[in-house]
This record gives sequence, C-alpha cells and structure tokens, in this order.
Amino acid sequence: MPTDFRHLSEQLPDWVQACRAYAADGRVATYIPELAHAPQQALGIALHHKSGLTASAGDCGMPFTLQSISKVFTLLLALIDRGEQAVFEKVGMEPTGDVFNSMLKLELVQPGKPFNPLINAGAIVISSLIRGDTPEQKSGRILSFIRELAGDDRPSFNESVYRSEAATANRNRSLAYFLKDNKVLDEDVEPTLDVYFKQCAIEVTCAHIARMGLVLANDGVDPSTGRELLPKRYVRIAKSFMVTCGMYNASGEFAIQVGIPAKSGVAGGILAVVPGELGIGIIGPALNDKGNSTAGVHLLKRLSEQYDWSMF
Amino acid sequence: MPTDFRHLSEQLPDWVQACRAYAADGRVATYIPELAHAPQQALGIALHHKSGLTASAGDCGMPFTLQSISKVFTLLLALIDRGEQAVFEKVGMEPTGDVFNSMLKLELVQPGKPFNPLINAGAIVISSLIRGDTPEQKSGRILSFIRELAGDDRPSFNESVYRSEAATANRNRSLAYFLKDNKVLDEDVEPTLDVYFKQCAIEVTCAHIARMGLVLANDGVDPSTGRELLPKRYVRIAKSFMVTCGMYNASGEFAIQVGIPAKSGVAGGILAVVPGELGIGIIGPALNDKGNSTAGVHLLKRLSEQYDWSMF
Amino acid sequence: MPTDFRHLSEQLPDWVQACRAYAADGRVATYIPELAHAPQQALGIALHHKSGLTASAGDCGMPFTLQSISKVFTLLLALIDRGEQAVFEKVGMEPTGDVFNSMLKLELVQPGKPFNPLINAGAIVISSLIRGDTPEQKSGRILSFIRELAGDDRPSFNESVYRSEAATANRNRSLAYFLKDNKVLDEDVEPTLDVYFKQCAIEVTCAHIARMGLVLANDGVDPSTGRELLPKRYVRIAKSFMVTCGMYNASGEFAIQVGIPAKSGVAGGILAVVPGELGIGIIGPALNDKGNSTAGVHLLKRLSEQYDWSMF
Amino acid sequence: MPTDFRHLSEQLPDWVQACRAYAADGRVATYIPELAHAPQQALGIALHHKSGLTASAGDCGMPFTLQSISKVFTLLLALIDRGEQAVFEKVGMEPTGDVFNSMLKLELVQPGKPFNPLINAGAIVISSLIRGDTPEQKSGRILSFIRELAGDDRPSFNESVYRSEAATANRNRSLAYFLKDNKVLDEDVEPTLDVYFKQCAIEVTCAHIARMGLVLANDGVDPSTGRELLPKRYVRIAKSFMVTCGMYNASGEFAIQVGIPAKSGVAGGILAVVPGELGIGIIGPALNDKGNSTAGVHLLKRLSEQYDWSMF
Repeated sequence: MPTDFRHLSEQLPDWVQACRAYAADGRVATYIPELAHAPQQALGIALHHKSGLTASAGDCGMPFTLQSISKVFTLLLALIDRGEQAVFEKVGMEPTGDVFNSMLKLELVQPGKPFNPLINAGAIVISSLIRGDTPEQKSGRILSFIRELAGDDRPSFNESVYRSEAATANRNRSLAYFLKDNKVLDEDVEPTLDVYFKQCAIEVTCAHIARMGLVLANDGVDPSTGRELLPKRYVRIAKSFMVTCGMYNASGEFAIQVGIPAKSGVAGGILAVVPGELGIGIIGPALNDKGNSTAGVHLLKRLSEQYDWSMF
Repeated sequence: MPTDFRHLSEQLPDWVQACRAYAADGRVATYIPELAHAPQQALGIALHHKSGLTASAGDCGMPFTLQSISKVFTLLLALIDRGEQAVFEKVGMEPTGDVFNSMLKLELVQPGKPFNPLINAGAIVISSLIRGDTPEQKSGRILSFIRELAGDDRPSFNESVYRSEAATANRNRSLAYFLKDNKVLDEDVEPTLDVYFKQCAIEVTCAHIARMGLVLANDGVDPSTGRELLPKRYVRIAKSFMVTCGMYNASGEFAIQVGIPAKSGVAGGILAVVPGELGIGIIGPALNDKGNSTAGVHLLKRLSEQYDWSMF
Repeated sequence: MPTDFRHLSEQLPDWVQACRAYAADGRVATYIPELAHAPQQALGIALHHKSGLTASAGDCGMPFTLQSISKVFTLLLALIDRGEQAVFEKVGMEPTGDVFNSMLKLELVQPGKPFNPLINAGAIVISSLIRGDTPEQKSGRILSFIRELAGDDRPSFNESVYRSEAATANRNRSLAYFLKDNKVLDEDVEPTLDVYFKQCAIEVTCAHIARMGLVLANDGVDPSTGRELLPKRYVRIAKSFMVTCGMYNASGEFAIQVGIPAKSGVAGGILAVVPGELGIGIIGPALNDKGNSTAGVHLLKRLSEQYDWSMF
Repeated sequence: MPTDFRHLSEQLPDWVQACRAYAADGRVATYIPELAHAPQQALGIALHHKSGLTASAGDCGMPFTLQSISKVFTLLLALIDRGEQAVFEKVGMEPTGDVFNSMLKLELVQPGKPFNPLINAGAIVISSLIRGDTPEQKSGRILSFIRELAGDDRPSFNESVYRSEAATANRNRSLAYFLKDNKVLDEDVEPTLDVYFKQCAIEVTCAHIARMGLVLANDGVDPSTGRELLPKRYVRIAKSFMVTCGMYNASGEFAIQVGIPAKSGVAGGILAVVPGELGIGIIGPALNDKGNSTAGVHLLKRLSEQYDWSMF
C-alpha cells in the first residue's frame, strides 16, 4: 500500500505538534559543548517522495549537524572508494548490544576490529578509508558527496561544532589509538579523527536529509534525473546496517516499533527511508536514554503505524 | 519481482549439489551428544509458495529437531498467551553481539533481563510464559501449535534428543538459575527447562519448516484456507527478531548477504521467509563457526542473489 | 614489637564502643532471609594470644554463621585431602577485582576455572574436593575440622540458616552449573551445593574464630598442646589468599589500611590473624558496600594502627 | 630466621646457573621494539643486606630499563608530592585480575578510575600527579628520586628506549585519553605520557634496584646513614601494592610461591624486598606468559624457599 501522500501532508502539522510533547522527557546532548545550545522543544520533519512531492512541518528549517548520520554516507563513500572486500577486512557486520562508544568488544573479541561501521570505532576506521592525500581532501570529498546526494550546495562544515568536538573528543581519541594499536587503523590518529570530526559537523536541514534518504529509498538512483548516484549493492548494505545497527542499542526495538531503515545522530537528527517510496529527515534535539531523538522516534512510530511502513 | 518458481524448481537440485561442498568446512554439533550422529554432508531444502506450489531437493526428507528454530514459535505462542506488554517486561528487543549462550550481559547490563527472545536466556524465559498447568501441558500446547502451523500431525518430540539435551544442558541450567536469581524467571527452573528442552527436540522435516515459514510470509494467514493462524502484529515482531537476531551473532552479515528473515538451529535447520511469497526449510547439519548450517547459508545466499529476495 | 596485651584488654571495651557507631552506615545482609534478623548495632570481638591470654568485648557472645569465613577452612581441608596440585588444577591463585559472586571471568578468561578459592565459584569447587562418600560425610568432616581448630564441640549447623540459603541460593546454583558445564566441577551440583551451604551455616562465636585464627597465627600448631593441626605450608597458602582475596574486592584497601590476613563473611563475621601472635574473631552484622562488617573493619584498623600489626 | 648471607653469597652463582635454564621457556618482550634486542638467556641478580653486605651473580652488570618497576617509585613520589588523600582520589587500591593494559574495568566499573597504581592506567594517572611545571621538570624529579634511592648518579634515561616506546605506545595513549574523558586524568595526555615513557626508560643495573629495595626493606630509612628517605607510611603502602598487584595478574601466585613484595618490569627486571633485611634486583629478559621474568621468578622462589622469606 503506497503512502497516501496528500493525506500525510495535511496531517503532518498535527502529528508534529502531538509528538513535540515527548521532547520534555528527553535531554539535549551536552558532551559536545556546542550542541548544548539546541532548543529542547524543537521538532521538525521533511519528507521527499519518489514522485517529486515533498512535505514538511514544524522546525524543519532549523539547521543541525549530521553527527552519526554521516556514518551511513562515509560507509557508502568508502565502499565506492575501496570496494566491499577492503572495507569488511577492517570492520564487521554485526550489531554489538553495547553503547555507541564502547571499547569492550575491541578488547574482548578477537581480532579486535570494530563490530560494524555505525558505532564510533567502526566509523573512525571508515573515515580512514576515504580516498584523499590530506585530511582536507578527504573531508572535501565527503562534503561534495553529501551535497550531491542532498541535491544542494548549502550543506557546509559548522566550524564551531567541529572545533568543539575536536577539543573534547577524548573518548574518540581513545578508541582511535586502541584501533591503531590493534593494527585495524592504518592511518595516523589525529588526521583520521580530523576527517571524522568534520563529517560529523556537516550542517544540514531536514530537507537535505530527506533528499539523501530518497536516493537510498530509490536504490541509489536520483529520482528526478534517473542517474545512478550510488551502486544498488552498496545502498542495500547501507540499509541493512541501518536496520540492524542504525539506532544505537535501540535498533532492535526500532525495527519492531517502526520497521524501516534509519540512522540517528546526537544532534537530534534522524535519517529514515521507506524503501521504494520516501526519504525522511527529522530534527528533534532532545534525546532519549539510548541517544535517539525522543520526539523524532515517536513521530516515526506514528507515521509507520498509520501508513504501514514496516518492512517486516 | 516475484520469484520465478518454475525456474527455481528446475535449478534447485543443481544448486543443492553445488552448495553441498561447503559442508566439508563445517562441523556437526556435538554438545548435545545425540546430534553428533547427523551426516556431515547432508543438505536438503523445501520451499512452499503462497500459490500452493512447492519445490524440494537434496536430503529434504531427513528428519531433524527444531532446536533454536523453536524459539520463533514459542515467542509467537507467548505473545498470543500473554500479550506484548507482559512478554517484553521479561525480555528485551536488542541483538547482543555475544554468543547465543553468553551470560555477560545478564551480569553487566541492568536490569539483568535477556536482551532478546532468540538467545538461550531469552528463550528460557519465553518458555516459562507459555500457558499450562504443568510442563506436559505447556509442551503439549507448543507441539500442537507447531503441528497446526506445519499443517501436519507428524512433528513429534524426539525422546532421545530430549533426554540427551536434558542430561547435558548445564550451561542452560546456569542461565536459568541466573535468571531466577535476577527475578526475571518466575517459574521453577527444572520444569521451565523441561519445556525448553522439549520444544528444542520437536522433530520435523524441511517441508514442515517451509510450511511454517509460509504462514509467516503470509502475515499469519493460512494461504490455503485464508484463516488467520497468527496475529499480523506478532508475525511482524517475529520477523523483525529473525532479521536482527535470528542467525546468532552472524545476523548482521546474513542481513547483508541474504537479506530475509531467518532462524537457524544447532541441528542444522534453517527457517527462512521471503515475505509475501515463500516459506523455506533447510537442513544441513555441518555448522560454521557461528553455529549456522554452512551449506544452508550458502544455498540461501545463492537463491537470494538469483531471485533478488533481499528486503534491503 | 609484640602487642601489649594487657593494655589492649583494658582499652578494648572503649574501642568497641567507639567503633559501634560505624554500624549505622552499614546494612545487614538480606539476600539470605534468615540473616536479615541480625541486630544492626551489634559489635563484638575476641582475641586469643599465643601465650594463652584472651580478651573480648562487646557482643562477643552472640552466635553467628561462618558464611564465607568457612572458605578458608574448606580450602585447608581440601589441601589436606587432595594435595596442592589437585586443588590448584581446579582453582587459580589470583584476585579478581570483581564481586564475590561474579561469573564474568568464568566466561571471559580461559580455561574457565575460578580465579581463587575465596570467591563463591572457587569455594564451590573446593567443597566438591572434600573427601567423603556422601554430602553428609563431607559436611560432617568439615564440622569436625572446624570444631578441632576452634577447640570446642559447640560449633554446629544452624539449620534454619542452612535451609534459608539452600532455598534462595539461585546465583550459587547458576555458578555451580556453569562450573559443571566448564568441566571444572566434577561432582553433581546439588550434593556439592549442599556441602557448601552447610559449611556456610556453621554457627560459632567470636571466641571460636579467635581460636581458629590463633592456630593460623601459630603456623598450624596448637599453642596449648604444641601439636601440629595443619601443615605449615598450607597455612601459608591460606594466609596468602586472605591477604590478596580475603576481604572481597576491598582486599587491596584492607591490606593497606590494616595489613593482616583476614576473611570476612556476609553474616558480619571477620577472622583475622596477627602472625606469630594472635587470632581474632569479630562479629558486626552491618556490612559496608563491599560486603565486610563496617564496624568490624574500623575496629581492626584502629587496633592495627595502635599496635603496628601491619605485615607491610 | 635472618638470612644466612654468607651461605647465600656462596651458593648464588650455582642457583643463577640452574635457573637460567628456565629462560628458554620465556620470550623477550617485543612490543617496544628496542627491548627486543635483549639477550634471551641473560640472568643476573644483586642483593643488598641491611648490614651493608652485598652479593651478586650472573649478568648483574647488564643495564636494563625500569619499565613498570618505576611505578612503585612514582607512586611514592606522588604520595610525597600530593599526600595520600589526593592520590587515592585518583586511583584505587584493588587488584584487577585483568592484564596490565586492560581497559575493561575503566568502562565497566564506576566511577571509571584505575583500580590501582601498578597497572598502566593507574601509573599514567600517578605520573600526572608528580610536581613540576613542565614534563622535563617532572621527569627530572623522578630521575633524581631514583638516583637518591639507588645511591648512585648513574641511572639515566635510555633515549632510544624512550623514543621507541613513545613512538609505539598506542595502547597507552588509548588508556590516557580514556582517563582524560573520564576526568580522572586532569593534565594533558601527551605531556603526561612523556613523563610516563621517560620513567619507564630509566636505565639501571641490578645493584641499583637492590639498593632501592633495601630502602623499602628498611621502612624508608637509608641503612648506611640512618636518614629517612621515605615516610614509613608510604613505604608500607608501596609494599602492600607490591604484594597484591606487583607481579601483574600473577601476583596471587607469587604471594603463595614466594611471599615477598616485588614488582616486575617488561624489560625483565624484578625489584624484590625481604622486609627488615634485604633489597633484591634481578634482570632476566625472557618473560613468562604473565609478563614476568621467567628465570627471575624461579630464582626468587628458590631463594625464598631456602631462606624462608615468605611473609605468610
């Protein structure tokens, strides 16, 4: 049953208003100081349909940084740059059940490589695989890739978020040096982290995320031009990871309650994909205890139930 | 693209023959002594299509015990018996990244309840939730449930496998007493384990599994009679778990390489579901190092690639 | 500097009175229901000097069960029964840093044997090594051993504590089945646990503990008769374990703050040894967050500082 | 029974010769490239008696770097610089049961501070507590402290070992950034590590270690001058840690088999103390699987048995 997009467009403001109440239960992330300024009550959404129709509601114009949402796209770019075999020599394919910045399995499970590319340890290794002679070249290529998928040149690095993260990200440094010691990370730590921090600090709006999600929903093909932007095989890999690992250690619950590929970030963004139909971008800075936008997850649950989006 | 079932039927014997070679790399499970007698080289498959068509090849007549495949069905029965809320008060919804019989997260992650119903700890709790005044009643209800979904009265308890497992399952006893101590398991340990061991020892053939899978593929409705055997909501839950946790700690890789809901058992069986189309039953006793039928997984990968079955 | 025992005898009542105040910060153990009845404010001590002099103060007549203090003596009896090699094939010699009933290292550190004989897992294995055709014989031999070292026939099994523990000790059952599965425990689980629960439920007073401690302080020789009750080598092993592992995961702090071999139990008892001089028995049911008698530890710290008892 | 030093001096060469054979079972450390050049078969020992007598045998003139032996002395200097309370706000007092460079407990056990000052995580924090305006000042003070205790100005930084360690110590960087993130390490990571790497790279001979050990054996007093070099209370703390944590995760076994305070280093050195009598320095680069000099441990075991050195 394809989503009745006209109905959705009409109802969207009411649903956003209703779900905004959940933001009161969440907390804006503070571990990157710059993120702590985000408005607790904000909630915005944009949806891009394969047909070209779009809808949006709430604080959808509010800019926010990709943070962990970027991990989906650096994975895709690394697959394009290095191929499947080289990527999966360095990171695994399994959910961990642990928090996103955990080091436990790196020490406990041989051969000490990250379990998947969507936890911090894995994403850091992925950043090291992006082609480029310098960190700047790598970051530039990531930004161009994001802009192409977003269909817009406005996504840019938020310098103050980047500097804030770079100045405080000691846990990520710890992960990176551990990976270096395990010989999983071949590149130098600080240049790799520079690429990682910058990809996290790319600033977008919901509409950008929705457009990027639509490319994934459409198996890598730009629906307006018909051009293949991403190999279908890699899009499939990305969507698989989004289902099994995309919502941190609440991915299993999200698969049951919502049932679509999604990836959240600590700034409160969510990228979601209704395969064959829709890309969705959400911003809601107040996070639940698993690190996902609390109002955003409720909004997706409501939409998924209403339009029967679950893949399962 | 619906599967070309005629083409599949014709090719199936060749594919089985080709994949049988992988069995040489695997090992038949020995931790339940009775299972150690299974033929290393066996490989069989049965497929039931929604249209009523069926196909099979290889050692598809070979009987085998459900083992962990039973966990999908006791979860469904517990959901029917107790409802969603009562079940998920006792078990979580998340993959673990650990081996199937691990105790780590029970000690490390509060509140000490099993992460999901498809690991041993979770399945033992689920067994305790099946309605019935005695272990025999509970086991009887599980067997009836399996027979109904299989559309056949022949599935029965394999007494020697049951006794072999009951006599040697000290790790499961350890898990159960831990759960009892954590007050997650309310029932007595040995009667609960009796139910658990018996469900694992239900003997079937590939055709039974295929028929049970077809009911799941058809959202709980018997395709021949149109009767609802299972609530659609619970089938969705089951399929979600099969994707995120069904193939032990190789579930993430299976999602990428095959991309359909599946559950394996230590006897070498695999239940797989092509939503809207097909139920699949496989037997291949030689297991890979993650505990899944090595030839069986290769066969499913080949079929999925050929017919583009991946949900992702 | 040998302890000035006359001075100590005179000051003891004041010190007990002063340390009793610390009991208010602790909590009486409740995990064995029978233990929950113990008086929170109680504090008693008895000291036996090699010269034959004794001193006592406070609630020193209050009976209490040995609980984990018994682990020192079953270790000694197992060494006598089986020899050093056989014992250390089954248990290690290392402190764990984990809580007393942890299972983590049994799963994480190969070959899955308990790290030392003073954690629950190790003590259960030790109980299985005591010679005897039946659990009753083994328990009888342990009781006789305790009585001999205590120089008194009054220590006996407290039946209600034994039954209370046997009825509720699911975590210990979990440990025992895990050890059985790891093939570290060779005997059957329930008979072994019966021996273990009974040794924990031996009821004594501070004077008994002091007398048993004096035998250890005197390298195994009964100071009144000159008879060797324990081989000196095994007493050394016991005292080593008491220093490195005797006070649960506060053993390191106790070594620094008090500096003498000691072993605590969850009923609030402490056995302490001033080598070459004294045996000490303490009862103080209110426990600190590491499971040691809070007032008892303070009293030992004060005495050790006053009389310079630290071995270090 | 005071050690018969004359007898010991005469027998020492034979014992060294006998124990040298054990070196064949061990492996020279390679994780710091410069250490890999050490001779596998070397074994040397020096003993300094309180009376002024000394003895030595084997390769006792061979220079080696302190490595983890330095942790005992930076702990002492930090205690002198900051006092007991400030030091133990930052590090705990408990053995871990884990390997020396483990991160597990930093993540698993709140509040995320190192369990003790003799594991790498703890020693890095201790290095940050040494007074000094610059890393050079801190390192200089550590070196002066070592020279004073060694009674010799020859101990110096081995620049190539220092550079080799600084270039490869990614696991230590990972630990340090983790501690920084946990707010246990207040100073910057690289300057702190610079101090840590330098203290590890102080080059000594067995005689230096023996002299330093003698000061500990003599409760902090220089036996030749009678001057107090170290407060007795801090020496007691150091000796306690040496017993419970000094020989990595073989400390419990060493307490039983040898029974004296000791600390080993990855270059193959061992510092050992016979309280009230002797300081001992050993070098034997081939390590056992716990990271201790294999021939060195055997030699200490033999000496301890012969002269009944065990404290227990």
